[in-house]
Amino acid sequence: MPRRLRLGMVGGGQGAFIGAVHRLAARLDDRFELVAGALSSDPQRAQASADEAGIARSYADWREMARAEAARDDGIDAVAIVTPNHLHAPVATAFLEVGIHVICDKPLAISLAEGEALAQLAREKNRLFALTHTYSGYPLVRHARELVERGDLGELRVVQVEYAQDWLAEPIETSGSNKQAGWRTDPALAGPAGCLGDIGTHAYHLATFVTGMTPSSLSAELHTFVPGRRVDDHVQALLRYPNGARGMLWASQVASGAENALRLRVYGTKASLSFDQENPNELWFTPLGGSAVRVTRARVKSAIAAHATRVPPGHPEGYLEAFAQLYKDAALQIEALDAGEALPAESRLLTTVDDGVAGLRFIAAVLASSAADGRWRDIGKR
Amino acid sequence: MPRRLRLGMVGGGQGAFIGAVHRLAARLDDRFELVAGALSSDPQRAQASADEAGIARSYADWREMARAEAARDDGIDAVAIVTPNHLHAPVATAFLEVGIHVICDKPLAISLAEGEALAQLAREKNRLFALTHTYSGYPLVRHARELVERGDLGELRVVQVEYAQDWLAEPIETSGSNKQAGWRTDPALAGPAGCLGDIGTHAYHLATFVTGMTPSSLSAELHTFVPGRRVDDHVQALLRYPNGARGMLWASQVASGAENALRLRVYGTKASLSFDQENPNELWFTPLGGSAVRVTRARVKSAIAAHATRVPPGHPEGYLEAFAQLYKDAALQIEALDAGEALPAESRLLTTVDDGVAGLRFIAAVLASSAADGRWRDIGKR
Amino acid sequence: MPRRLRLGMVGGGQGAFIGAVHRLAARLDDRFELVAGALSSDPQRAQASADEAGIARSYADWREMARAEAARDDGIDAVAIVTPNHLHAPVATAFLEVGIHVICDKPLAISLAEGEALAQLAREKNRLFALTHTYSGYPLVRHARELVERGDLGELRVVQVEYAQDWLAEPIETSGSNKQAGWRTDPALAGPAGCLGDIGTHAYHLATFVTGMTPSSLSAELHTFVPGRRVDDHVQALLRYPNGARGMLWASQVASGAENALRLRVYGTKASLSFDQENPNELWFTPLGGSAVRVTRARVKSAIAAHATRVPPGHPEGYLEAFAQLYKDAALQIEALDAGEALPAESRLLTTVDDGVAGLRFIAAVLASSAADGRWRDIGKR
Amino acid sequence: MPRRLRLGMVGGGQGAFIGAVHRLAARLDDRFELVAGALSSDPQRAQASADEAGIARSYADWREMARAEAARDDGIDAVAIVTPNHLHAPVATAFLEVGIHVICDKPLAISLAEGEALAQLAREKNRLFALTHTYSGYPLVRHARELVERGDLGELRVVQVEYAQDWLAEPIETSGSNKQAGWRTDPALAGPAGCLGDIGTHAYHLATFVTGMTPSSLSAELHTFVPGRRVDDHVQALLRYPNGARGMLWASQVASGAENALRLRVYGTKASLSFDQENPNELWFTPLGGSAVRVTRARVKSAIAAHATRVPPGHPEGYLEAFAQLYKDAALQIEALDAGEALPAESRLLTTVDDGVAGLRFIAAVLASSAADGRWRDIGKR
Repeated sequence: MPRRLRLGMVGGGQGAFIGAVHRLAARLDDRFELVAGALSSDPQRAQASADEAGIARSYADWREMARAEAARDDGIDAVAIVTPNHLHAPVATAFLEVGIHVICDKPLAISLAEGEALAQLAREKNRLFALTHTYSGYPLVRHARELVERGDLGELRVVQVEYAQDWLAEPIETSGSNKQAGWRTDPALAGPAGCLGDIGTHAYHLATFVTGMTPSSLSAELHTFVPGRRVDDHVQALLRYPNGARGMLWASQVASGAENALRLRVYGTKASLSFDQENPNELWFTPLGGSAVRVTRARVKSAIAAHATRVPPGHPEGYLEAFAQLYKDAALQIEALDAGEALPAESRLLTTVDDGVAGLRFIAAVLASSAADGRWRDIGKR
Repeated sequence: MPRRLRLGMVGGGQGAFIGAVHRLAARLDDRFELVAGALSSDPQRAQASADEAGIARSYADWREMARAEAARDDGIDAVAIVTPNHLHAPVATAFLEVGIHVICDKPLAISLAEGEALAQLAREKNRLFALTHTYSGYPLVRHARELVERGDLGELRVVQVEYAQDWLAEPIETSGSNKQAGWRTDPALAGPAGCLGDIGTHAYHLATFVTGMTPSSLSAELHTFVPGRRVDDHVQALLRYPNGARGMLWASQVASGAENALRLRVYGTKASLSFDQENPNELWFTPLGGSAVRVTRARVKSAIAAHATRVPPGHPEGYLEAFAQLYKDAALQIEALDAGEALPAESRLLTTVDDGVAGLRFIAAVLASSAADGRWRDIGKR
Repeated sequence: MPRRLRLGMVGGGQGAFIGAVHRLAARLDDRFELVAGALSSDPQRAQASADEAGIARSYADWREMARAEAARDDGIDAVAIVTPNHLHAPVATAFLEVGIHVICDKPLAISLAEGEALAQLAREKNRLFALTHTYSGYPLVRHARELVERGDLGELRVVQVEYAQDWLAEPIETSGSNKQAGWRTDPALAGPAGCLGDIGTHAYHLATFVTGMTPSSLSAELHTFVPGRRVDDHVQALLRYPNGARGMLWASQVASGAENALRLRVYGTKASLSFDQENPNELWFTPLGGSAVRVTRARVKSAIAAHATRVPPGHPEGYLEAFAQLYKDAALQIEALDAGEALPAESRLLTTVDDGVAGLRFIAAVLASSAADGRWRDIGKR
Repeated sequence: MPRRLRLGMVGGGQGAFIGAVHRLAARLDDRFELVAGALSSDPQRAQASADEAGIARSYADWREMARAEAARDDGIDAVAIVTPNHLHAPVATAFLEVGIHVICDKPLAISLAEGEALAQLAREKNRLFALTHTYSGYPLVRHARELVERGDLGELRVVQVEYAQDWLAEPIETSGSNKQAGWRTDPALAGPAGCLGDIGTHAYHLATFVTGMTPSSLSAELHTFVPGRRVDDHVQALLRYPNGARGMLWASQVASGAENALRLRVYGTKASLSFDQENPNELWFTPLGGSAVRVTRARVKSAIAAHATRVPPGHPEGYLEAFAQLYKDAALQIEALDAGEALPAESRLLTTVDDGVAGLRFIAAVLASSAADGRWRDIGKR
């Protein structure tokens, strides 16, 4: 076994959902060892969180952490950034500047300009910049992408993607007790996009990941259902693709009854496929005029899916395994980058900083179209 | 048992799908006897079709049929119109003029003006004008409407409706062998709306039927995927409702793998519901933050559903039963109208000529918005 | 169209579930006209029921009905028997004796001896004797049988069949208000088998119909859960087949939450199939080591399924259509028998009196094995 | 965070499925550190496997390992036993004897006598003996048990449990290339029970775990479908419970198309529940006469389920998380035992050596009943 990479974390203190998930995911395949962290901007909370997570070196400030870790012989190889959105860019910049690889939660940044600067910096520094669009770590999502790529669906015609949740159906951000609801609905911390930035970008990424196509333009409408909320909690959009395909994207955080209902359907001239994140161990493939086939994770003959699978047929995998896959691929790429080698082919599906920039272009186009009463807007090349 | 009503039929000759369906549906509950028909404009084919269907009086011309039947003591009580769309209005007019009740396939007509004239005439003549939006005959669709009406979903926020098929994914209308594909893609026979008129209106009607809400405006895009096709085969639209609710509507006849996938989801402040036409014996109801409940047709305590149910729990019903329900409700209303009585309450959900006009307003708004590159268009009051 | 056959009915008066279902089913395909009936042994109730059902000739006594109808030039061609079980044999005998075809509800009789005598009589008289094992009328059940027959599953190894309901989970027969519960739990009317005779025989028939195999022996246990109940309400059995296959059969009327859950799974050396009566528009086919295919009713390329299908792909069919199929096949066979012709090939799947005898052999073997504490018992050749 | 416990492993060398799974599971919650192993009886293979898994101390012999680890100050706290079945008892004995806690794969042993001796020894030594019946680690399985325990189902009446796979449908053990198939079909290594011991015991344990009831007797039949196979590959059994409930158990490894289809249904006087291991993020609960409710893992208000849940609603969990739960509970109990404290209440659902003995009683009863042509056999108290 190659040595475990040393990982640091910024954000993810006590009570934060996504920090704990990153830690579970980083650990599963045993390629990372979490050794340093700036888990909170409150020094006491930072220390307590680090102790709880078994992290040896706790910092009160991420700038200090970047400096100190870069200076150590046994400093971290990579940092996981799990802060609110507004800090993604500054934190990532600080670590890239000192040559530390970055694994960052989505969205990449709170503005397109920030995102483009980050992409530029990552290229200059030749460091890994992985963005955790978790859902692209599912074996069947990767298999779906392969089906499209090798032409099993024919020419693509229709894309239907949606992401529905109900956890923000009521104004829980005003209660003070739900920290995540608090920052995610605060434009100063989350950026100008609420539901759009949080889950709309996941839906958009999933669609582009599987189809291999970026829409050329869109017509969109943002809406805020909950009175007093400062960001959107609902987005609906029509999409046009360069090849003439059409699409629809819907994301909502007020969809009563929905837990985490991310679903993608793609229709081509030969066949269609359907994937539902809440049941990730199956993928539906239906030929034109034919019968639906329930493709399962571990029975599919696919090197791509096998690379992202840990247990035998019929033993279900879940969200943590998909997340772990991103860390596994990141480890492979970090080793290659550090060794000056080409990135391993089997890791090529790892989401990049450019995917993050594409997501920010999408956000910008939706904001612009919605402000212009749904006028069609170009999305721009990635 | 009250006497069977005498039914005539215009259209529905040999090989026509929908004529045979109307005959099965009219027969199931034994309230109609099919005694006269003008099943084809070709006299020989008309006679042969009538013989095959066991129809006593065959006419070569529907104008002649209207005159002759009106003149007979035992003439038909009602006529079922199952022709291509362009004949709906002229045929209906001819029968209404002589005082015969009308049961007409959708869409109501090929222009809004035609439709409004028909509605006016039906009112003047005080005759039944039922439009066969079949899907509103399902017991669980009616139950869904009741759930909304009595407030179980709270204030409605989001409507998602879609209708996907794949039978027109290839240019089968040019083969000459598929009669239905031929007329449905010929603007002279089907009207200016292809997929939009054929199934888009079904989706639109289902959404308005269940929610009790008509959108105020829409932004839409029609598209034709199959080269050479003369009408649209794909429509996508965003909807705004008077109460602030938002919606999306998608209809496609090129969605590879889809058979007859009409699906409605409605989200309110308290709960959501979901109905899938291909599995009509269940309805999903999920409270905000709660668990999904699989509501079944015959176990639901609902007079409305019971009125539309024929067999006990667990014995599935299907499309023909839903269709038969429209005929059953039509029989109840015809008897009441002929007796000068108020329409029976239990028949009140039967689709009317005004629903048909609403469908034509929807078609007009989609055509206009699509022509204006998706500019939002008012739909207009029904 | 050939002339409608004249149908009579014995049993099925007001409030009886199965009589109304037979009438709907007989009507759907327009091959029968219901003209005579002895719907109740109470003359007034018989007349009122006949009036309600629109039946011209009402009899107070089925013996009288058999005599009178046989004597008329326009007497009935066939009789539908929908009485409690104990009358199946005497009524069927009376009509066969006078040369009238019989369509009879299941089980065939209340003893094997009765059933064998009926089979003998039907053969002697050369009259149709159709037994309404409704579930064999589903197009996908017939298609499943064809898949087995043509070897798509390979050599059969395992049969799993079950039929669960919950309507008798409580002692509703003592309330007096549920007529059906009353007679079905009364051994004098239902025979010695309760749940076993009512739904166990349906499960057994479905398994033998699809697999084409009759078990050679079984080990069974009957049980009565509801205190005071006079018949079994639960049966579980192990099966052995002549080719070495193994099977399990479960039927219960106390399975809380179950509506009408008849389900069959068959596993062969090459593939398996699964059918669930509550969702009869799909059939699952899964190759060894492969992915499940959702076979749908109207897309399957099968003359056998097409013969039992009325509406296009994606338009669901249900229980009434399956039931109607038996009447349609019966009409085809009656015409052939009356014309002295061979039975039409497309009607060959209609359930026969011999299937009824096989069901009685099954009942006898279960009763014997259960009485012998589960000792394996031969079922006997049909 | 408490210190990580030091874990050793016996078995699980290169190519072994279950060893890798144990390692992933042990790591997920970060409560164990794998520091020693005897992964193969072949010294070279043992070393190579240990290197690959990042294990510091590799032993060629597990007896030596037990001695050496017990002698070290930093010796292992617990050993995970993932060998073929015939070694479970000797290995566990060796480690218990030197005071090391045991986490053992199922079945506990290859004979009831062996198992009882182990249970006795574990009690004497006051060491943890956890048996990895993985499926009891699913949050919804634990929630199901709680529903039964608190009476939501009423008095239990019917238990239906089954476990179907198809990986042994052909004689792959003769190919030499499938190591697992090799030892699992070799009575010398797997014991006298094939499918019965491998997955039948899982099904049996799941049923007893959820219902809280042990059957009093059973009637069973083992069968071997694949010619030349030396153990059973199919088991079917009828069950009787002390309270009068009835049950059926089916396990098969020749069920074409089945991946890992472990499914449990339990029916009580008030309600039923259904769980399918291949879709472990949902549990179905249906009241008598009512509608099915789809209970999801993270929305259920249950401390028991929450204890076994890592990610928020709608983020699916899988088999590894269930497995990790057993390790998490084991860590809690090891800490308590080492500290001389009572076992923590939240860990109480961890499977014990007594559950293992119960499984062996079940195996013995099935073997005896099958040998006696299905005669009912007592299972015996645990």
